[in-house]
Parts: sequence; structure tokens; C-alpha cells
Amino acid sequence: MIFYDCSTAPSPRRVRIFIAEKGMEIPTVQVNLRGGEHLEPAFRAKNPHCTVPVLELDDGTCLGDIVAIQRYLEEIQPDPPLLGRDAEEKAVVAMWDRYMEFDGFMAVAEALRNSAKGMVNRALTGPVNYAQIPELAERGRQRTRRFLADLDARLGESPYVAGPDYTVADITALVVVDFAGWIKEGIPAEAQNLRRWHENVSSRRSAQA
Amino acid sequence: MIFYDCSTAPSPRRVRIFIAEKGMEIPTVQVNLRGGEHLEPAFRAKNPHCTVPVLELDDGTCLGDIVAIQRYLEEIQPDPPLLGRDAEEKAVVAMWDRYMEFDGFMAVAEALRNSAKGMVNRALTGPVNYAQIPELAERGRQRTRRFLADLDARLGESPYVAGPDYTVADITALVVVDFAGWIKEGIPAEAQNLRRWHENVSSRRSAQA
Repeated sequence: MIFYDCSTAPSPRRVRIFIAEKGMEIPTVQVNLRGGEHLEPAFRAKNPHCTVPVLELDDGTCLGDIVAIQRYLEEIQPDPPLLGRDAEEKAVVAMWDRYMEFDGFMAVAEALRNSAKGMVNRALTGPVNYAQIPELAERGRQRTRRFLADLDARLGESPYVAGPDYTVADITALVVVDFAGWIKEGIPAEAQNLRRWHENVSSRRSAQA
Repeated sequence: MIFYDCSTAPSPRRVRIFIAEKGMEIPTVQVNLRGGEHLEPAFRAKNPHCTVPVLELDDGTCLGDIVAIQRYLEEIQPDPPLLGRDAEEKAVVAMWDRYMEFDGFMAVAEALRNSAKGMVNRALTGPVNYAQIPELAERGRQRTRRFLADLDARLGESPYVAGPDYTVADITALVVVDFAGWIKEGIPAEAQNLRRWHENVSSRRSAQA
């Protein structure tokens, strides 16, 4: 396997932390996003969506999607389980992971990509340029604030995002909370549950990934 | 189990077709989206995201996410497999299913919800109102056209979306193609692969769901 990464980017961090939690070591290639390497033909042949992360399997199949990669790694190395252990857990973990992605990650990305000076015409990832929409940047910021408040409430009723155990939903949530710092949306002062959880999951060795 | 559905809506159709392919029969409750039942306290207690579908399990746990529900059903009734059979298939199917959702479903929804007269201030699903953004409606339409062209190309190299077998990725793609009709984006005349596949998957009994 080869893991195509960009060490400064939040999306591949969701896989980096996952790999670290599994205790796996996968040969890794850094893709120079700043230099546009992801838009060049060589990388596009591996992932037409022009995004990292990508996991290239030994048979040449390229997985160009975070959740697909995590599913593969969980299948080939089940311990420790990060996607749930039985039918109900697997479903509940998937649900919370998707909430973290849709309500959290996509909100921050919406705010950032529609406002950053370095991302003009790059409002969406991928091979096609799309113009920034200032109203969408503002909406993304509103949604990010709401997400952080909702996550704080959730962590007041559950030690981890999806329940009693650390799972992939915590990985996604950690990446989102740290990514929100890119748009200067920190953990609100009153969000004590979120702060406690963030200190907890950030203290795991995998969080360095 | 109880399945909370809205028979006219595309999102729960992704689960309705999945259930039909499994040959399962699950007691179903229709939620009156037009009447705002999904925003009322009784339904919100089951799904704070105020969306259908929801699958309520016998222990009272409510799964308020399409992919979570599909994962649960695949676990409790593995045949016929719709999420892939081995590690690589599971990952490849997940990847294609997510492409269908992100590039397809979300594009159509973006176009529809940001332009429909009946959806003023309902540009996103959920408990919070967000204003329509006309530029986003136009972007969604552009993305929908590109999606249909890309899907046609994919179906020129593969009999089904994720490979040689019918999977959940075909279910999502079918729902997207039919949903695109809501914004009057039909299958392009030149998209012969897409048309052939659409006729094929639409002829399955499950497509009536």
C-alpha cells in the first residue's frame, strides 16, 4: 500500500490519526497541494477528484475517499475497532461520524474556501474551478458556531462523540475543531464539555498525526 | 423496528430501495414533511436533525442517517450484499457511493433548495432556517450537469457504478438521476451509457420503492 498525504491538510489527517490508532505503518508520499501537484495528470490518474488522501492498494486500486480508506483499514486490521463492534454500534458510529463531517467539516470548509485569498475560484475541491460566494462563507461560519455548540451539548451527555468509546467520530470531530481554528473559530469559553473532550483526545499520541 | 419515511422524498427512497433489494418488510410510518411534522417536538425527539429517513430500533435507538441505516440493515441481513463482500469491495463501494452522494445528490439539492419557491429560507435541511443563495442554485445546476456527464463516462467502463455488481452506489445514483428531474435536468441525449444503465436499474422491482 501507498498512502498519499499532505501533512498540513485536515482531510488526510482524518486518515493519519486512524492509521496511528491502528498502530499501522504505511509508506507515505507527500503531495504538494500548494504547488498544484494534485491537479497534474500523474496524480489525477490515481484520483480524478484531485484530492488527498488516497490509498493505493497493492493491486493498483486507488481509494480516493476518506471513509472508503478507513473502511478498508478497519477490515484488514480490526483491532482496535474504530467503526463499532456490532451491528448497532457500527450504525451509531457511522451516524455520528457523518454528523461530524456534514455539520462540522463541511461548514468550516464552506467558510474557509469561500473567503480565503489563496482560494479564489477554489470554492470546491476537485478539477473544476468554482467562484467564491461570500454569502456562503458567512453561512459556513454561522454553521460552524452552531456545530461547536451542539458538539459541546453532545459531550455533556456522552464521554465520546458516538458513545462510551473512542471511535472514528472522535477523529473527525477533533480534525474539525482544529480546522475551525483556520477560520479563527476557537472553542467557545462556555463550552466546557467540548474543551475537556478536546484536551482528552488531543493527549492521545495519534493526535500528533 | 420502525421506519420513518416520506414516500415522495428522494432521501428516504435510498433506504426504501435498499430494503426492497434485501426483501425485508419493516413497519413504516409516513412523516408529513409538507405539513412540517419533521420540525415538531415528537419527531425531533427521534431525530434532532429533523430529517427522514429514520430507523427506530427495538431498544429505542434512532438512526437518523441514510448510510447508518444501510449499514445496520446490511449487518443484520447480509444477503444480498449491497455494500461489498470483501475488504476491497467494501471500500470501493463506499467510495463510489460517496461520489454519488457528494457530486450528485448534494448538487441537485443545492440547485433545488436554493431556488424553489416552496423552500424559501429552507436552503438546508434541519432545524435552522438558512436563506436561499441564488448563486448556489446556479452552481448546483452546473455541478448536476457535470455529474451526469461523469456518470455516463463511468458507465461506459463499468456495467454498474462501483464495478461488475449492483450495489448501494447504484441505488444512490438512481435516486440522484430521478431527483435531477425535479430541477428539469434529464439524462442528456448523448449520454447513452447512462440511459442504458438507468433503464436497467429502473426495471428492477426495487426501483418502484
